[in-house]
Amino acid sequence: MKPETDHESNSASLISRIISGDPRAVARAISKVEDSSHDAAALMKEVFPHSGKGLVIGITGAPGAGKSSLVDKLALFYRARKERVGIVAVDPSSPFSGGAILGDRIRMQALGLDKGVFIRSMATRGNLGGLARATVDAVSILDAAGYEKVVVETVGVGQDEVEIVKAADVCVVVLVPGMGDDIQAIKAGIMEIADIFVINKADREGVYSTEKELEALLSLAHREDGWQPPIVKTVATENKGISDLASAIERYRDFHFSSDLGNQRRRAVARWRILELLREKLVSRTLDSESASEKLDSLTDEVARRQRDPYSAVDELMNGERQS
Amino acid sequence: MKPETDHESNSASLISRIISGDPRAVARAISKVEDSSHDAAALMKEVFPHSGKGLVIGITGAPGAGKSSLVDKLALFYRARKERVGIVAVDPSSPFSGGAILGDRIRMQALGLDKGVFIRSMATRGNLGGLARATVDAVSILDAAGYEKVVVETVGVGQDEVEIVKAADVCVVVLVPGMGDDIQAIKAGIMEIADIFVINKADREGVYSTEKELEALLSLAHREDGWQPPIVKTVATENKGISDLASAIERYRDFHFSSDLGNQRRRAVARWRILELLREKLVSRTLDSESASEKLDSLTDEVARRQRDPYSAVDELMNGERQS
Repeated sequence: MKPETDHESNSASLISRIISGDPRAVARAISKVEDSSHDAAALMKEVFPHSGKGLVIGITGAPGAGKSSLVDKLALFYRARKERVGIVAVDPSSPFSGGAILGDRIRMQALGLDKGVFIRSMATRGNLGGLARATVDAVSILDAAGYEKVVVETVGVGQDEVEIVKAADVCVVVLVPGMGDDIQAIKAGIMEIADIFVINKADREGVYSTEKELEALLSLAHREDGWQPPIVKTVATENKGISDLASAIERYRDFHFSSDLGNQRRRAVARWRILELLREKLVSRTLDSESASEKLDSLTDEVARRQRDPYSAVDELMNGERQS
Repeated sequence: MKPETDHESNSASLISRIISGDPRAVARAISKVEDSSHDAAALMKEVFPHSGKGLVIGITGAPGAGKSSLVDKLALFYRARKERVGIVAVDPSSPFSGGAILGDRIRMQALGLDKGVFIRSMATRGNLGGLARATVDAVSILDAAGYEKVVVETVGVGQDEVEIVKAADVCVVVLVPGMGDDIQAIKAGIMEIADIFVINKADREGVYSTEKELEALLSLAHREDGWQPPIVKTVATENKGISDLASAIERYRDFHFSSDLGNQRRRAVARWRILELLREKLVSRTLDSESASEKLDSLTDEVARRQRDPYSAVDELMNGERQS
């Protein structure tokens, strides 16, 4: 561990280095928001006004759909157009699956040698939460640092993951052929957030029926904004269909920013960001003192032994906070 | 809407009807915790001491793995042993996927005709959260009502879903053959919570290689408690392997309740329940007044227009709360 230099510990200087696009400053800032460091709030207050220029692309879909390859190829496509690309991958942490995640990171290092690409994976923190908040903060930092495209990649269909992807300007949902009756796979919460569908691995059998099923599902849906989510077929590993995807993303961006419903969406995202952060700050304020955390420990024991119910334990914690 | 009778509105009477196992009282109580009704806390304080007798079985896995059929067949198995079974299915709500969810519910109605089976699905609420808390409360209600087995079924690999399943006494993770390189599918956060693995649809091709991959993954894992998660093969639609699964569940229950690590787990669950509830109560306290919710609205507008950052918006909400 190197000691901090005056230069690095100075937040005015950190923010100016972020704005100038310095990847080391970006990495440092993301670590701060990830660790909920004491100066993270001050930093984000400065970062936020500089954000909003880049295009944030959320990519999600069932595990195994080839999202990572797709993100890689899309990044290379933008690099060929001289755009800088930030990638934030949400990796629910799992000691068990170290191998798989390590594999991802090695794959990404090839891209990572390119200085115009910034890659960061965000892991699930402890049970105090904050992953979704840290992820959208990381996106804002990359945006403020001048990355023209910021891609957020999430695994799975959980509520946090859905919210993270919904906070993007464009949401891409990735499917694969041959999901058979399992197109329901994607149902849970993410069908209706898709601005664009990708059928990846489109050289596989079953692409036609997956497309038909998807079209049938889409014909039942009525988006308030009138946008018809296109279906783009790709074979990411062979770099096929990537420019089609990029065009679809651009068409949606133009549509989104010209429509009043784009504003509604930005309001929904803003509200969600405020609530996420509020939740986190209130809990850490309540549990911040040593006496509160001791009380939490003893209440935990009592609830575990069923000598007390969680509701009265929470009453006790909230009363303690008022008295202190 | 029927007016409430004195009988129903009396919480002392509601709790006694729950304890006596009345399904209507159970349904009513679950609605209260789901809606965060004003008397939900008082109710749960009374319910909690009566819980802890039933066995709570969490079942999760990739979408399309056939979890619902497995749960149905397991419920029928327990019914044949004259045990009452509660099923709580977590359905991230989605207007888009109404069809799929409706299908599930119709399927379940066949089981639901059996008075010894209680089925309830819990939907994702708005962005104030509370799904996980409401779900574990529903489980406690069923437990207090004397259901010997309470099955919690979740879709997906999100953080909430993982937490819900972790709160069970036994966690079952369901895989299907032929996931190929996609066994990673299940990696994200749920591999290490499995006390038992099921390979469902075990009449399909690829069962052998899925089993080998899983064994390889398991050989890398070292559980602190020394338990070796067994792999059970099932074909739920043909009712095959269900009694093997039930035996594995029983073996784990015996192991879990005899081990000191069972206590550690109950502590972790208790802590998580307290924190979930604390988060929810603190946010609703802060936003409870009309002026706070008006302030949230105007702050949302400012953040959406990037005239303000989320951090200072939260400062403002928290300051307002202190002054009021």
